[in-house]
Amino acid sequence: MAAVPSYTVVEGGTIITPRGFRAAGLHCGLKKTERNDIGAIVCEVPAAAAAVYTTNIFQAAPLQTTRESLHNGRLRAIIVNSGNANACTGKQGDADAYEMRALAAESFGVEAEDVAVASTGVIGENLKMDCVRDGIARLAGALTDETDGGEQFSQAILTTDLVKKELCVTLRIDGQPVTIAGAAKGSGMIHPNMATMLAFMTTDAKVGSEALRKLLKRTTDGTFNMITVDGDTSTNDMLVVMASGLSGQKTELDEHHPDWAAFAEAFAAVCEHLAKSIARDGEGATKLVEVVVSGAESSESARAIAKTVIGSSLVKTAVYGADANWGRIIAAVGRAGVPVNPHTVDIKLGDIDVLASSQPVPFDEDLALEYLKGDTVRISVELHMGEEQATAWGCDLTYDYVRINAAYRT
Amino acid sequence: MAAVPSYTVVEGGTIITPRGFRAAGLHCGLKKTERNDIGAIVCEVPAAAAAVYTTNIFQAAPLQTTRESLHNGRLRAIIVNSGNANACTGKQGDADAYEMRALAAESFGVEAEDVAVASTGVIGENLKMDCVRDGIARLAGALTDETDGGEQFSQAILTTDLVKKELCVTLRIDGQPVTIAGAAKGSGMIHPNMATMLAFMTTDAKVGSEALRKLLKRTTDGTFNMITVDGDTSTNDMLVVMASGLSGQKTELDEHHPDWAAFAEAFAAVCEHLAKSIARDGEGATKLVEVVVSGAESSESARAIAKTVIGSSLVKTAVYGADANWGRIIAAVGRAGVPVNPHTVDIKLGDIDVLASSQPVPFDEDLALEYLKGDTVRISVELHMGEEQATAWGCDLTYDYVRINAAYRT
Repeated sequence: MAAVPSYTVVEGGTIITPRGFRAAGLHCGLKKTERNDIGAIVCEVPAAAAAVYTTNIFQAAPLQTTRESLHNGRLRAIIVNSGNANACTGKQGDADAYEMRALAAESFGVEAEDVAVASTGVIGENLKMDCVRDGIARLAGALTDETDGGEQFSQAILTTDLVKKELCVTLRIDGQPVTIAGAAKGSGMIHPNMATMLAFMTTDAKVGSEALRKLLKRTTDGTFNMITVDGDTSTNDMLVVMASGLSGQKTELDEHHPDWAAFAEAFAAVCEHLAKSIARDGEGATKLVEVVVSGAESSESARAIAKTVIGSSLVKTAVYGADANWGRIIAAVGRAGVPVNPHTVDIKLGDIDVLASSQPVPFDEDLALEYLKGDTVRISVELHMGEEQATAWGCDLTYDYVRINAAYRT
Repeated sequence: MAAVPSYTVVEGGTIITPRGFRAAGLHCGLKKTERNDIGAIVCEVPAAAAAVYTTNIFQAAPLQTTRESLHNGRLRAIIVNSGNANACTGKQGDADAYEMRALAAESFGVEAEDVAVASTGVIGENLKMDCVRDGIARLAGALTDETDGGEQFSQAILTTDLVKKELCVTLRIDGQPVTIAGAAKGSGMIHPNMATMLAFMTTDAKVGSEALRKLLKRTTDGTFNMITVDGDTSTNDMLVVMASGLSGQKTELDEHHPDWAAFAEAFAAVCEHLAKSIARDGEGATKLVEVVVSGAESSESARAIAKTVIGSSLVKTAVYGADANWGRIIAAVGRAGVPVNPHTVDIKLGDIDVLASSQPVPFDEDLALEYLKGDTVRISVELHMGEEQATAWGCDLTYDYVRINAAYRT
C-alpha cells in the first residue's frame, strides 16, 4: 500500500452510504431471541455486480440461486437471512431459496433474476418459510437510504458475532467523490476459501461487472481468504458486491483508468478491514492474531505458511495464555507442506526477536508477556529464501470457543 | 481383520515381555515434578530394527542421531527422555543428542552406532545435560527384564499424558510363541505424518530389518498416521521397533512365510491399540472419536475425508457437547479437497441414521444425546462412489485442551 492512502474513512458510513442504495433489517422469527434475522439491500438502478463463493462441495441452496442471478453480472437486490443456513436441506431447500428470491423481487419491485439470496446459521434444518414470507413483506416498507437502514441490515446478518463488521471509505475518481462500503458477518466455521461467511459491499463507482469480478477475485485472495477462526470452511461463504454507478464520475473504471489503482486500494482496504474484523470477533476470541511471513520463494509458500501458523490450535492457545511459546510457531512452519530452509528462519513476536537463523534468542519473558496480553498480536516469520510475503489473520483459541460450540444448536 | 484374530493379548505384558529385552525408567530432573523423565530399552543381542519419523521440516536433533544409528537396520538400545524435546536447539542440541547416544552406549555396554535417541517435551530449550548424564548412569543399574522395568519405562516417556499406552500380544510362528509389545506417548501436538509423537515396539520374532521396515511403513499409514489430537504435526514424532529374534522360531519371517499374515495382523493390532490410546488420551479429551469413511473412489480420498472430519474443531466441540450437529460433519466432508458426490452421502452417529442421500433424516434427539455422551463416538460416512474405505481416530475439543495449552510452559 502507498504511504498516503488513496481514500479516507467515512465515520458512521454504512452499506447504504454509496449513492443508489436502500437497506433494512428486522426480526421475523428465525432467531429465538428478538434480534434481527432478515435483511435486504436494494439498488435503485441495475448495479454491476460480482460474487465469490465457498469452495465447499456441499454448497448451500442460496448459492446456486445467487449464481443464476449473477450470470449477467447485474443485480438490483440482495435478500439475506440469519439463524438458518438453508444448507443440506435437499429439494425443499432449493425451492425455499427460489421462493425467497421471487418474494423479494415482488416486494421490492425488481426482477427475480436481479436478486441475490444468502443465508447463514444452522445447517440441515429447513427454513421456517412463514417467518421468511412475513419478514420479506415487512422489509419492503422498511427500506430506507437513511443510516438506520444500513445499521439494521448489518445487525440482521449476524449469528454468534458480538460486533458488527463494516467500513465505508471515499475517494475521488475523475475528480468526483466515490464511496465504497461493506458489511460482513463471521464468527465460527470461518476458514474462507473463495469468500468469507457472508459479506456484502456496495459502491457508487461506475465500473463494469467484468472489471469488478476480477478485482474482487484478486482482492479476496489476499484478504478474506487469508483469515481463519477454526479451519472449518463453511457451506455458505459468499461475498457479493454491487456498483450502482451513480457517483457522477465521467468515465467507467477499468484497469486502464488512471484512478484504477486508487480504487483498487480503497476496495482492498474495505475487504481487509472486514476480514480482520471477522478474525478479531472469531467465536470466543480475545484478540486478533496477525501472521506475517516474508522472505519466501513464492507467494504460495508464504500463504501456506501464514495460514498454517494462524490455524495452529497450539499457537492459538499459547497466544490466549500470553505464552511466548515460539516452538509451536516453528513447528507449524515446518509442517506447512512447502519447502523451508531449516537453518535460516527468524521469528518475532511484535518487535521481540525470539528466533534468529533457526536458533533461540534469549529474550525478556516479562516484555513478551506484556506484549502478548495486548489485544493484537503480530507474529513475524522471515524465511530468508526469497522476496515474497503474505499476511494471515486469525484469533486465539479460548474456553469460550469451546463453550459456544459445544452447544450451538441448543 | 479376520474374524478370529491371529493373536491373544498378554495381560500385564510390557515392552520387555518379548524375549531379549530389559528396560528401566527413572526421574533425573528434566521434569519439575518427581515423575520419571528418562528411560531405556536394551536388547541382549543385536536387534533387527526399523523406524519412521515426523515429516516436519524442523526435525528435532535426536531424529538425525537415530537415523544414523539405524542405517544398518540394527539396534541394541533406545535412550529416551521426556520434559524437553531437544528441538530447535541448534548445534548444542545436535551435540547433546550425540552425547546422549555415547553415554548410553558406554553405560549399557553397546556400540554407539547401535543406540537410538528420542526426546519429547518443550521445544527450543537446551537439555539440562547434568540431569541427563546422571540419569543415564543410574539407568544402567536399573535395567531389568522384570515387569517393573517395562512399567517404569512407559512412565518415563509421558508428558501431559494421563495414562500409559501399551499393549502386548502373542501368537505362534512356526508353532513357537512369539510376542510383540509396544509403548507410546501422545497427548498434544498430535497429528502424525509418518509416525506418532513417540512409540516403541519390541518383539522376539525372527524377522529381517527390511521386512520389518516395510511392515512398519504400511502399518503406520493405517494406524498412527490416521490419528489427530490438534492437527499439529510435532517436530519429534518417532516410532522405533526392535526385533530380538529370540522367540525360538525356526525360519526368519518375511512376506513369503506362511505365518506372515498372522504376524502382520498382530503387529497392526499393537499399532492400532497404541494409536487409539493416544487419541483417547488427547489433551483434555473426554472421549475417543472414530470416523469411518466408506464407499470412496480411492483409499486416498477416504483417508483425506476421514482426517478432515476427525480434525474439525467444530465436529470436536459438538462431540464434546453431545450435540448431534451433523451439519458440521457434512461441511467437513465437503472441504476435504477430494471429489465427493454432493447427492449420495449417508451419515450415521453410532447406529443412528442422520443423513441419507445427502438429505436430513428425522432421528430421535434423545437417543443421539445418549449415544454421544458415551466414551466412544463413531461417525460413519458412506459416499456411495466406490469400494475404498479408511478409519481415523481423534478426540473431542474441550475446555481442558485450552487450559492445558494456554499455559504449557509455565
